[in-house]
Amino acid sequence: MPLVRITREVHFSAAHRVFNPEWSDERNQEVFGACANPNWHGHDYRLYVSVEGEMDRDTGFVMDFKDLKSVVQSRVVDEMDHKNVNLDVPWMDGLIASAENIVVAIWGRLVDRLPEGVALAKLTLWETPRHYVEYSGE
Amino acid sequence: MPLVRITREVHFSAAHRVFNPEWSDERNQEVFGACANPNWHGHDYRLYVSVEGEMDRDTGFVMDFKDLKSVVQSRVVDEMDHKNVNLDVPWMDGLIASAENIVVAIWGRLVDRLPEGVALAKLTLWETPRHYVEYSGE
Amino acid sequence: MPLVRITREVHFSAAHRVFNPEWSDERNQEVFGACANPNWHGHDYRLYVSVEGEMDRDTGFVMDFKDLKSVVQSRVVDEMDHKNVNLDVPWMDGLIASAENIVVAIWGRLVDRLPEGVALAKLTLWETPRHYVEYSGE
Amino acid sequence: MPLVRITREVHFSAAHRVFNPEWSDERNQEVFGACANPNWHGHDYRLYVSVEGEMDRDTGFVMDFKDLKSVVQSRVVDEMDHKNVNLDVPWMDGLIASAENIVVAIWGRLVDRLPEGVALAKLTLWETPRHYVEYSGE
Amino acid sequence: MPLVRITREVHFSAAHRVFNPEWSDERNQEVFGACANPNWHGHDYRLYVSVEGEMDRDTGFVMDFKDLKSVVQSRVVDEMDHKNVNLDVPWMDGLIASAENIVVAIWGRLVDRLPEGVALAKLTLWETPRHYVEYSGE
Amino acid sequence: MPLVRITREVHFSAAHRVFNPEWSDERNQEVFGACANPNWHGHDYRLYVSVEGEMDRDTGFVMDFKDLKSVVQSRVVDEMDHKNVNLDVPWMDGLIASAENIVVAIWGRLVDRLPEGVALAKLTLWETPRHYVEYSGE
Repeated sequence: MPLVRITREVHFSAAHRVFNPEWSDERNQEVFGACANPNWHGHDYRLYVSVEGEMDRDTGFVMDFKDLKSVVQSRVVDEMDHKNVNLDVPWMDGLIASAENIVVAIWGRLVDRLPEGVALAKLTLWETPRHYVEYSGE
Repeated sequence: MPLVRITREVHFSAAHRVFNPEWSDERNQEVFGACANPNWHGHDYRLYVSVEGEMDRDTGFVMDFKDLKSVVQSRVVDEMDHKNVNLDVPWMDGLIASAENIVVAIWGRLVDRLPEGVALAKLTLWETPRHYVEYSGE
Repeated sequence: MPLVRITREVHFSAAHRVFNPEWSDERNQEVFGACANPNWHGHDYRLYVSVEGEMDRDTGFVMDFKDLKSVVQSRVVDEMDHKNVNLDVPWMDGLIASAENIVVAIWGRLVDRLPEGVALAKLTLWETPRHYVEYSGE
Repeated sequence: MPLVRITREVHFSAAHRVFNPEWSDERNQEVFGACANPNWHGHDYRLYVSVEGEMDRDTGFVMDFKDLKSVVQSRVVDEMDHKNVNLDVPWMDGLIASAENIVVAIWGRLVDRLPEGVALAKLTLWETPRHYVEYSGE
Repeated sequence: MPLVRITREVHFSAAHRVFNPEWSDERNQEVFGACANPNWHGHDYRLYVSVEGEMDRDTGFVMDFKDLKSVVQSRVVDEMDHKNVNLDVPWMDGLIASAENIVVAIWGRLVDRLPEGVALAKLTLWETPRHYVEYSGE
Repeated sequence: MPLVRITREVHFSAAHRVFNPEWSDERNQEVFGACANPNWHGHDYRLYVSVEGEMDRDTGFVMDFKDLKSVVQSRVVDEMDHKNVNLDVPWMDGLIASAENIVVAIWGRLVDRLPEGVALAKLTLWETPRHYVEYSGE
């Protein structure tokens, strides 16, 4: 059966602050600039979750899009939407709240929650409408 | 000369919390739900600023787009980008940080800063990619 | 209090066919072309629902966006999503399934379901990414 | 019958230069900056043409979208796509090639070409993905 | 010469129904839910066709975008636009009308219709603005 | 540390003409059609610059997005925005101004300007909202 990649978009609105707790305020301000604002700022993150597998002969599906959305909703969106990435998300503890660290942490939330025969292929996380990060598990 | 409306888009990333300080935490949670999260959440706000006037015969412009952007940048974007709407923006003091209050406050920041003969016509503020508010000064 | 307009986007995927049942197949084909295909075709309709009112002093809201979405979901989206506009939607009975008739019918579904002090202001219905219709109740 | 507004999007790719031929090069550079580059620059213009009228009882249409597209194609797109606004478009002769002048000139190309009972309501012209101009015939 | 990938977007509006004809109505409803609606539903499919090859020295093109559009128009869009995927498209006969099966079938329509030296590289098919499928021929 | 790809979008408005100077006007018109218009046409090019590297442990960044934008701004956007690709851009001299040649030339402008440990991964250049080209350095 053909190997097809399928992608579902979700989004969540969250506050964050990019800073290194081991550094002084001056060093954080110097390196991260406005992103280190102690009073936080925020984004409407858009996440594209891509999974890959052979099409099932009986359904014509790699995986039901409703099931894919459901996994991403419970494992990621419910945990991040209307939350503070630094304070409210246990699986971001000890990590700098950069888009890079968020996308890698989301990978860990999803990689072993997919049906047999379906592999997590790529995550694309837009932090603003102008820039995004991608992670493929390497 | 013809009356033309011109619009410039800008955006800013900010944290906020929607709550009424005169209410208990329970009442805030009941009315505002996740929007009242004490740890904040955030958005990539997109703002469309529309101004209107007669075209100038010598330039073919209602107003130079670069000048329009410059006014909005200094009066709004520099004040809100990578900031906390509730804590960092003096002209939001005492106002609930709803999209409605933000758009009305932005009106006040811009309405008397335009060249003679050019009127602020409408502000459109997208809080997420799914919803927005509009204000025309009434 | 300021008068603000707020808008929520929703979408639904539906099949339809544009034809006049009082006409012959030839006349329908001549007037409506491919839109009259007896085997149906379909769209991902995007609907923007705009309501208007004075901001509430205690909440900073014209109307809670969650409530607006909830009304539109139950009165429109649940009735049209993954449905056939001509066959499955009772309140389209006897109407040609043009975007114009759909948007006017949706107006009737929503106009008296809003909270006191909030008026339905405009509906914008995109039938494809290239064209849309608007209705303001006149 | 209800009054409905319908809108069709088209686009065209064109070169232009914003400058006043009665001014010196220095004055043009001072006022228009990079927009006055003598070697031209260009845009992918997106035009939204909105017309308004009562729905026809027999078709459910204000106007057939195919007919609307056809008028805009022959009267505007064919004349501007892959052209130089300053050099190749006779009805822009003597006009500064600002977005404002273009949108007003397009109005003149379309206003008397619509079916009886259908009025040109608004033109929206995006010059870049960040700014646009609107004209309603006043 | 450098190896470049070029992509053209097209779209088509179609009705479909996702169901397995070898199953009972109950089983189809259970597995496919609303997607199995016997009265059909529909989408504005957006298709991105990516081809790859070495740039031609004389034209600077991998392949003329007009030719690419022309092939996709005649081989795919003309066959699917304003059609019913299940009933009107011969090359979907016997296939469940999932996005996965559609994208694989479109691959078969295009793969041997490209100029020498140009390879079909990837197809991306958006079924709604929230989800899409990709196929690269494996 | 995980390998992450990060992408920044920029845009520039430019005029160009696609033609082969070694050919007659007739041959150029025959091959390139409207794209060869001697009076030029233009586009709002959108460029997505993707770079890849291991995340830095101290910042959580592959590379600061501000630095990435800064490199692309000075090496590409400042050289192309409001310019004529054929006449004003020295590093396009002698090259046909196709999207393919532009994207390959931009690769040359950026590939050796990135910080140690960060590799240019892919460039995606949209010439219009309907088509784009990609180059990965091969």
